[in-house]
Amino acid sequence: MNKILEIHEADSDVVVQSGVRWDDLNHALAEKGIPLFFPLDPGPGATIGGMISTGCSGTNAVRYGTAKGELFLNITVVLPNGEVIKTRRRARKSSAGFDVTKLFIGAEGTLGIVTEATLRLVPKLPTSVAVAQFPDVSSAVSAVTEILQSPMGSHIQCVELLDTNMMEAINFSGLSERNYPVKDSLFLKFQGSPASILETSKLSHFQSARNAKESEELWNHRKIALWSSIAWMNDDRTRAWTTDVCVPPSALPTLVGESKADLDSNGIKHTIVGHCGDGNFHAILMFRDDEELEKVRGAVHRMVHQALELDGTCTGEHGVGVGKTKYLSEELGEGTVELMRTVKKAVDPLNLFNPGKLYPDPKTER
Amino acid sequence: MNKILEIHEADSDVVVQSGVRWDDLNHALAEKGIPLFFPLDPGPGATIGGMISTGCSGTNAVRYGTAKGELFLNITVVLPNGEVIKTRRRARKSSAGFDVTKLFIGAEGTLGIVTEATLRLVPKLPTSVAVAQFPDVSSAVSAVTEILQSPMGSHIQCVELLDTNMMEAINFSGLSERNYPVKDSLFLKFQGSPASILETSKLSHFQSARNAKESEELWNHRKIALWSSIAWMNDDRTRAWTTDVCVPPSALPTLVGESKADLDSNGIKHTIVGHCGDGNFHAILMFRDDEELEKVRGAVHRMVHQALELDGTCTGEHGVGVGKTKYLSEELGEGTVELMRTVKKAVDPLNLFNPGKLYPDPKTER
Ligand SMILES: Cc1cc2nc3c(=O)[nH]c(=O)nc-3n(C[C@H](O)[C@H](O)[C@H](O)COP(=O)(O)OP(=O)(O)OC[C@H]3O[C@@H](n4cnc5c(N)ncnc54)[C@H](O)[C@@H]3O)c2cc1C
Ligand SMILES: Cc1cc2nc3c(=O)[nH]c(=O)nc-3n(C[C@H](O)[C@H](O)[C@H](O)COP(=O)(O)OP(=O)(O)OC[C@H]3O[C@@H](n4cnc5c(N)ncnc54)[C@H](O)[C@@H]3O)c2cc1C
Repeated sequence: MNKILEIHEADSDVVVQSGVRWDDLNHALAEKGIPLFFPLDPGPGATIGGMISTGCSGTNAVRYGTAKGELFLNITVVLPNGEVIKTRRRARKSSAGFDVTKLFIGAEGTLGIVTEATLRLVPKLPTSVAVAQFPDVSSAVSAVTEILQSPMGSHIQCVELLDTNMMEAINFSGLSERNYPVKDSLFLKFQGSPASILETSKLSHFQSARNAKESEELWNHRKIALWSSIAWMNDDRTRAWTTDVCVPPSALPTLVGESKADLDSNGIKHTIVGHCGDGNFHAILMFRDDEELEKVRGAVHRMVHQALELDGTCTGEHGVGVGKTKYLSEELGEGTVELMRTVKKAVDPLNLFNPGKLYPDPKTER
Repeated sequence: MNKILEIHEADSDVVVQSGVRWDDLNHALAEKGIPLFFPLDPGPGATIGGMISTGCSGTNAVRYGTAKGELFLNITVVLPNGEVIKTRRRARKSSAGFDVTKLFIGAEGTLGIVTEATLRLVPKLPTSVAVAQFPDVSSAVSAVTEILQSPMGSHIQCVELLDTNMMEAINFSGLSERNYPVKDSLFLKFQGSPASILETSKLSHFQSARNAKESEELWNHRKIALWSSIAWMNDDRTRAWTTDVCVPPSALPTLVGESKADLDSNGIKHTIVGHCGDGNFHAILMFRDDEELEKVRGAVHRMVHQALELDGTCTGEHGVGVGKTKYLSEELGEGTVELMRTVKKAVDPLNLFNPGKLYPDPKTER
């Protein structure tokens, strides 16, 4: 299930089996000299089938959208009744009814098993990375809003927030040769024509990479967040609980501020990294034993509630799984959850596919 | 039902009632000095409820995606069972299950009545318009692919194809003071930072507008396509059938070429205009009486078949309605149409909402 089946360079799309990994796909395209790539970049090694099913996104979503956008055209799916369907043709747009593709995106395998998918590709553009430090998360987020709403905003491919702890962890980890200021920081990736890239280097506050190698190096430091966090604990027993919530961007400083205060007052070691352009925020919470694990569990629960309080979601990109089913009714309302169950029951009346995932059980809830 | 309820400038979103028209919304934002706009631009006067329900798009879709993308966050809907639900919260991203919002986009009112919606806005950027003539549609489409896949591609906001007939009609209509060369033409709108806009003016082949006024004038000529076509007939009795299909972009020259040959050989007066960056193609077919209408009907039928043959769709943006239900099984396969019916039956078991629309009737079909 890991074959690239067709590459349509002139149409900027590709047909793959669901076991293909996004990073392998992009390597294969680069090796063939095709100047296009698939922009969804969740964890390394994630498969197209898993990415569809979690409704994932990643650092490029601020520019190219998430799995719930328009990057997936057709999906070939095995339904619970054994029927194999194709959800769409290869045209980029269609108004032929509601988009059946979208039924399976974020459904966590509960409505069908994805076997193939047709993916949109986008052009590889010149990019450049810049880093800036801020006195606090609030001023970092304000800076992001300002840039995104300016003409420069159209050149932003990624905008990532790393908190003081995260910067300390990166310095400590030894995975970077730099010594970053231990401040709330933004890592930005700009894209566009060569002239517009040059223009972005004049943005005040930001230290731009001087060349491609430096850009790659800086970006790599963003990408080692999880491993740096664990290394920072300097302790074999440490494990990490990564949680993910998302709020309207202007509410991010409140959420981050209150979450950090809560974590600190409970003595939970943590780092924070966020897809800040989308209001998406991940906390990496460290624990070493069952007692600490229980503390972490409580903190995650409060963080989710705080996100919902701020008109946000219990998960921006990781999915519901089993652990977050209990938040769905509060987030969406009972009527919406009931509609989701109605669809599930109609498509999978025997509850064969991934039972226990996604839909809260009306009996055991509350 | 035409009130703007909330404007969240810092979050780039807005909450509106479903009767609000997209053009009124954009005027209201401009009047308040808010440097943001809603980028879906179908026909003038279209309402948010209609736009959601047809899964519309327009000239900006090549940059900002269609109604099926990520421009709609929450939708408030009255379900056939009387329940009023909100599909999502206001966070830009969520992986909390499959996206219930998407169930209603393109559903043509068959699953619920939309009463409110939360829309993403995007920054108003400097833009510039350029026009180019080509010896044929094939070379125009090749030029588009080349630009879209180059660094310049990230600056394209719109790319519209107007065929020789369309250019003749615009000249004839008197709605333009220019006299355009009667050739297959591209109208492009570029966006980005000031420097990148300047760069685009160096694209060979293209005549760029010299200033904002000229840009507006050129763009207006694109926007009067329908009225020019009717004026061109110079005849009170003329009516127009506008049809819309969409294919993978590389198949567009074949589709346009074969369609024009078919129309010409049947003596059907027509103009062609397409959202060429997406492979979407509209033919405006003129008729004056029932006999000509029958000819037009036959031509539309052949055009749809040809689009399906080319891995395309029977409708890129106008929707299925009643007239195109008969093509759905051929386009999507019987299993997929049956899944759509399954969802419809589960949500609206009494078939109360827009009966006869969208879903082909299994009894009368074929
Ligand atoms: C270091 C790191 C960084 C990460 N960063 C991000 C990030 O930035 N953004 C983000 O969104 N995620 C991120 N993730 C999470 C993860 O990469 C994504 O959730 C990804 O989409 C999971 O893909 P997978 O192939 O591992 O799926 P799995 O975890 O194996 O499966 C996920 C779900 O999909 C279902 N499924 C899998 N395949 C199919 C199929 N073919 N048909 C039907 N159902 C199927 C499974 O049953 C399961 O419910 C990160 C993870 C790590 C470890
Ligand atoms: C000159 C011209 C140019 C056009 N250009 C484009 C274009 O570029 N791109 C494009 O996509 N379209 C285009 N169109 C078509 C049209 O603008 C779109 O289809 C638009 O989305 C229709 O909106 P409306 O409000 O007129 O909906 P209507 O035509 O009134 O309704 C459309 C469907 O939606 C349903 N509906 C309406 N409101 C609701 C609601 N609140 N809840 C549930 N269901 C509802 C109706 O029952 C119907 O089935 C153009 C039309 C014209 C005349």
